[in-house]
Amino acid sequence: MFLAPWRSLLARALQRNSSLVYARYVQLATVRANGQPANRTVVFRDFLEDTNQLKFITDSRTQKVQEINLYPWGEICWYFPKIREQFRIAGKLILVDADYSEPALQQARRIAWQEISEEARSQFTWPQPGENKATARAFQQPAPDSIAPLDNFCLLLLEPEQVDFLQLRGEPQNRSLYLRDGEGNWSVRSVNP
Amino acid sequence: MFLAPWRSLLARALQRNSSLVYARYVQLATVRANGQPANRTVVFRDFLEDTNQLKFITDSRTQKVQEINLYPWGEICWYFPKIREQFRIAGKLILVDADYSEPALQQARRIAWQEISEEARSQFTWPQPGENKATARAFQQPAPDSIAPLDNFCLLLLEPEQVDFLQLRGEPQNRSLYLRDGEGNWSVRSVNP
Repeated sequence: MFLAPWRSLLARALQRNSSLVYARYVQLATVRANGQPANRTVVFRDFLEDTNQLKFITDSRTQKVQEINLYPWGEICWYFPKIREQFRIAGKLILVDADYSEPALQQARRIAWQEISEEARSQFTWPQPGENKATARAFQQPAPDSIAPLDNFCLLLLEPEQVDFLQLRGEPQNRSLYLRDGEGNWSVRSVNP
Repeated sequence: MFLAPWRSLLARALQRNSSLVYARYVQLATVRANGQPANRTVVFRDFLEDTNQLKFITDSRTQKVQEINLYPWGEICWYFPKIREQFRIAGKLILVDADYSEPALQQARRIAWQEISEEARSQFTWPQPGENKATARAFQQPAPDSIAPLDNFCLLLLEPEQVDFLQLRGEPQNRSLYLRDGEGNWSVRSVNP
């Protein structure tokens, strides 16, 4: 696998912000069925092994999954406060749900389930997200099996096609634009901030 | 002016995170001309006086302004790390540029220019954002007049229509959805996280 040229910058940013648990929180923008933008915080779960794809997890019952099924494209905005660096990463979204056919990605989905905490797994037993709040009792289900994911558990992958990297600390600020061509090769140019 | 019911929650979150300069940084999602989502960090500059509109500033030469001119709708995602609260605020975007006709908003644009630092004002003299990086010299323009804004300085307002408020700390998490009707009245309901 060819490691994309922006990966080392992102690895350095993560390393230098490793004391902040929320340095792994990013904002994912998608487009709603009515054409309006949507935006929410998601947790970066590492790269999918031997790829440049970013891993997230989600619940198939959420609005975001409906949006991604309609239009599988997203842009994350990742701001690292300590070092004042921003990565805007745009690309195709791949939703690996219970019916996804590729065995290697089903295996990645199972591993993602096994890697999260019991508390995080329990959230997938909660009542339908976005509906009127259910009684407290509806949230107290037995903890699910830690081996096999619940059907509504999804692995969400972002396959980057463009990365806009900004360092606010420069004089002037430094900004680089990374683009992937149809053959998967990355180019980079320095642009005005 | 009727203060929207979510304003007190946001004020409390800002107050409790006031030691973090980046607690005023939010991620703004818009839609690109090609229909793809865009997402970047912007700085919250307070509410426009006597309204529920959030103030930001931007440069008319940026891609975001092109996007907003085509489709004036946005959603900000605002995550407060210290208290683990998230506000997703969606609404109409109003771009107050040099040609904007309403005198009260032109006045607000002038005030916004006067309130930012000289360093921030200088950025509006920089070469065209997103073009190939200019020489260092092109970034060293004389500081602009602090009274009258440069033509490319814009005030950007977000007029909220929906606020999705999430407290991660609850057991289970608490989530409230605020909606504004056609007459400007807000309703709220508690929903499943």
